Formats: sequence, C-alpha cells, structure tokens
Amino acid sequence: MQRYFVEPDLFSEDEISIVGDDVHHIVNVMRAKEGEEILVSNGAGRTALAKLVMLSSKEVKAQVLELLDEQCELPIRITIGQGLPKGEKMEWILQKGTELGAYSFFPFSSERTIVKLDAKKEAKKLERWRKIVKEAAEQSHRAVLPEILPPVSFREALKASNAYTRCAIAYEKEGGTTLHQVLDELQGDDTLLVLIGPEGGFSPEEVGIAESNGFLPISLGPRILRTETASQYVLACASYQFERKHAAAGTGGEA
Amino acid sequence: MQRYFVEPDLFSEDEISIVGDDVHHIVNVMRAKEGEEILVSNGAGRTALAKLVMLSSKEVKAQVLELLDEQCELPIRITIGQGLPKGEKMEWILQKGTELGAYSFFPFSSERTIVKLDAKKEAKKLERWRKIVKEAAEQSHRAVLPEILPPVSFREALKASNAYTRCAIAYEKEGGTTLHQVLDELQGDDTLLVLIGPEGGFSPEEVGIAESNGFLPISLGPRILRTETASQYVLACASYQFERKHAAAGTGGEA
Repeated sequence: MQRYFVEPDLFSEDEISIVGDDVHHIVNVMRAKEGEEILVSNGAGRTALAKLVMLSSKEVKAQVLELLDEQCELPIRITIGQGLPKGEKMEWILQKGTELGAYSFFPFSSERTIVKLDAKKEAKKLERWRKIVKEAAEQSHRAVLPEILPPVSFREALKASNAYTRCAIAYEKEGGTTLHQVLDELQGDDTLLVLIGPEGGFSPEEVGIAESNGFLPISLGPRILRTETASQYVLACASYQFERKHAAAGTGGEA
Repeated sequence: MQRYFVEPDLFSEDEISIVGDDVHHIVNVMRAKEGEEILVSNGAGRTALAKLVMLSSKEVKAQVLELLDEQCELPIRITIGQGLPKGEKMEWILQKGTELGAYSFFPFSSERTIVKLDAKKEAKKLERWRKIVKEAAEQSHRAVLPEILPPVSFREALKASNAYTRCAIAYEKEGGTTLHQVLDELQGDDTLLVLIGPEGGFSPEEVGIAESNGFLPISLGPRILRTETASQYVLACASYQFERKHAAAGTGGEA
C-alpha cells in the first residue's frame, strides 16, 4: 500500500490532510479515488491506515481508520555525521542510510573535503537531499522521517557531542574501540553519533581533536571501506545487534 | 601502499610478474621506479610485499620481500546470488559487496527480472563487472579476488545449492528464519549462498521452489531493503558476527 509522510500538524487521530507534491502523486500518478486506503506517517513515529475522503488538485483529505503500532525503527537513534563526499555519493548515502534505519544525518566539511558548497548550492542540495530521504523513508516503510541538518564545519560537528549518549569517529587506531564495544554499551532510546570522513578519511590531528571532545575512534572491520559504505556498515550492524528478535517486514522490494 | 592482483601462476614465493593493465598503471600512472615497494596478491588469499626490480611497457617484475599474513577475509565464504537489477545497480552491488567481503557473486534472471542480456551484452558486462571487482578488491585490501560467475536462470541458480554449507533466499515469510539463525549455525570455512531478488523481489512460487531445493527463506530486518542494499546488509552482519575480535585495517579511505 502507498505510504506518505505529512507534517505532524496535518496529522490528527481522526483526519489527515495531505498537501504539496504528494497531492499530485496521489491524484495524477496513482490516480487514487475516494474510498481507497493509504498509509500515512507523521514522520515522528506515528503511522495510520487512512481512507481517502476528499481529493482536489490542491489538497487530499483522508479519514484515519486505524493508528498502527509498527516496529520498524531502530531501537537506538543513530545520527550519521558524513564528511561531504564527491559527486552524487551523498545522495546514495542518504538513500541507503534511510533504508537501513538512520535517525538523522548531518553533512560536514573537514580537512580532506574536496566539495565546496556556497549558500545557494547548499540550499539546492538540501532540498534535493530531503526529497531523496522522504522517498526512501516511504519506500522502506519508515515511521520516522530522518532529518538532514545543514552542512557544518568539522569543529561545529564536534560541538554536537553533548546531545548524544555516545559519540564515535570512524578511524583505524591501534587499540581503538570496536563497533561491538560501542553498540554493546547502548540500549533502547540511546543516541549515537558516528562521524565518517570524506574520501581520504580524517587526519590524525582531526581524530586527536575529536578524542579530546569525547569522541571514540572506532574501527569498522578489517577491510578498508569507502566513505559511502561506512555508514551502511554501521547501520546494518546496529540492526543486527538490536533487532535480533524482530519479525521482518520484508526485503528486496522496491516502491 | 599500492596493491595489485596477479594470476596465481605469475605469483611465486620469490618473484612476481605483472602484465596487462596494471603495467600501465604502475609505469605511467604511478610512475613507479625500480626499488619501490608494492603489495601483490594472487587473488587466492596470498599477499606479498614486493620490490620492483624490472619495469618495461609490457611487463613489471617484482622480488618478493615478505609473504604477509593478512587477516582481512571473512571467515565464512559468502556468495551473493543477485537477481539482475536495472541500470547500473549491479556495478554498485559488486563494488560494495567486494569491499564488504563477498567471496563470489553470481547474477541470475528470475520472474521479475526486467533486464535482458544477450550473449554479446553479457560478455561486455562481465568484463566490466570483473574490472570493477578487481579495483574494489585492491582498494579495500582484499587478499581474495571475488569471482563473478556468468548470469544464469533462477532454476540454474537453485541447482548450485549442493555446493554450499547453507543456502538462503531473501524473503519475508511468517515464521521465516532470521539472518541471526543462519549465521549462528555457521563457523569458519563454511560457505553460504544468499539469493537476493531483483526489484520487486521473488514471487511466492519462486520461494516455494527454492524451499523445496533446500533454501531457507530469510528476513533481513524490519525495514524494506532495496535489492541493491540487501547484499550489503547480509555482508555487514556477517562481518559483525564473525569479525568481532578483529583489529581493523581502517575505514573511510579511498584508493
């Protein structure tokens, strides 16, 4: 069944209002009619089965039939701090990270970042990135719409540490912490921030500064992972650690 | 340090001969000189530190300084049976699967496969795919060069089952097996084949046939994964399960 995200203020326990691009999708792409059912999430963990009761070119209204108790969110909330990669890799990271359960993302620039975003480019990118995350969240049946924060500097990224239960930085270091050690310490509702470097990773100086700011250098297994693969490794391992008993919703599908 | 793969017959305990594209890479791209050191793997698990002793436009010879005992291969050998996806997704699946430790790949066509490969297209694709896997294996410091088998039909794919310790098919099924149950049963040197459907997954009939051929339907967590994400989930979870005590070689890097 088709899924949509709406702003929390348009989502009540009895009626849901859908505006914007999704109206076009429901009316013109899906050619939906009154009486048909859809799934709607408020992006904050609530999902409802709803029946279309009014369709116009500007707005679609749906009556809530049932509030669903879906368990498809990672028990720990993982934020991916991603060093801006080259080309379109960021789009892949966001799409795959959303499928794999990331709670939020923030891109940052560090010593080895090549991409430079001016304010105008940044606004355009963010708009595109948010569209990609919304579509991936709908397709993978997320109840939470991952947030993408505006790109910050590495120094700014480090300041975020206080907001999380645990902060880590992906870096191979003799005697460094393993991902297991980090995940074993966490439990439901804990929050984890993992910083992943751009191509070329982090400089030893950057890792030193991160450590002095409370970030644990963590290794992501014995093989060198590219920057666009590291976040998927972290998220899949977290799913394996925390969703062991979970009955699966499916796999291999595509919207 | 730069890494290269050579055919096992060109790899001896004292001297290594490098031919083909890698000669151009060493001589013209890296501008390497006699006396410089490189890493060379035979693609079957043996890697050597070697010193360049002769460079020509046709061949490069290197003297083995030390046979390395690297532990960067997954203890269980995982073969990804991938339903041919649309566009360039297969290239991504091969590159990421190689980084994440896949032992081999075989593409197959099933009921919901859209891509059609004629013999000529297939040969070209295979050549390109093998190049992608070789580059990814060098970049991620693999000692084993994953093999890509020529595409087969779903029925042919099922016949492979006898060659593996355990065979699974990615499919959500009430009371189906979880990836944990499959991995918990395996140990070092075991082999695992996982079939992943193309976009749209497998039909219930296909899963039924697979089950009667000894394949376990396995779920890959609570979120719907796209076909190009499923293999990465399986491989990352296997790394998490079997490489727990492993000292990492690094992350976030890129060749």
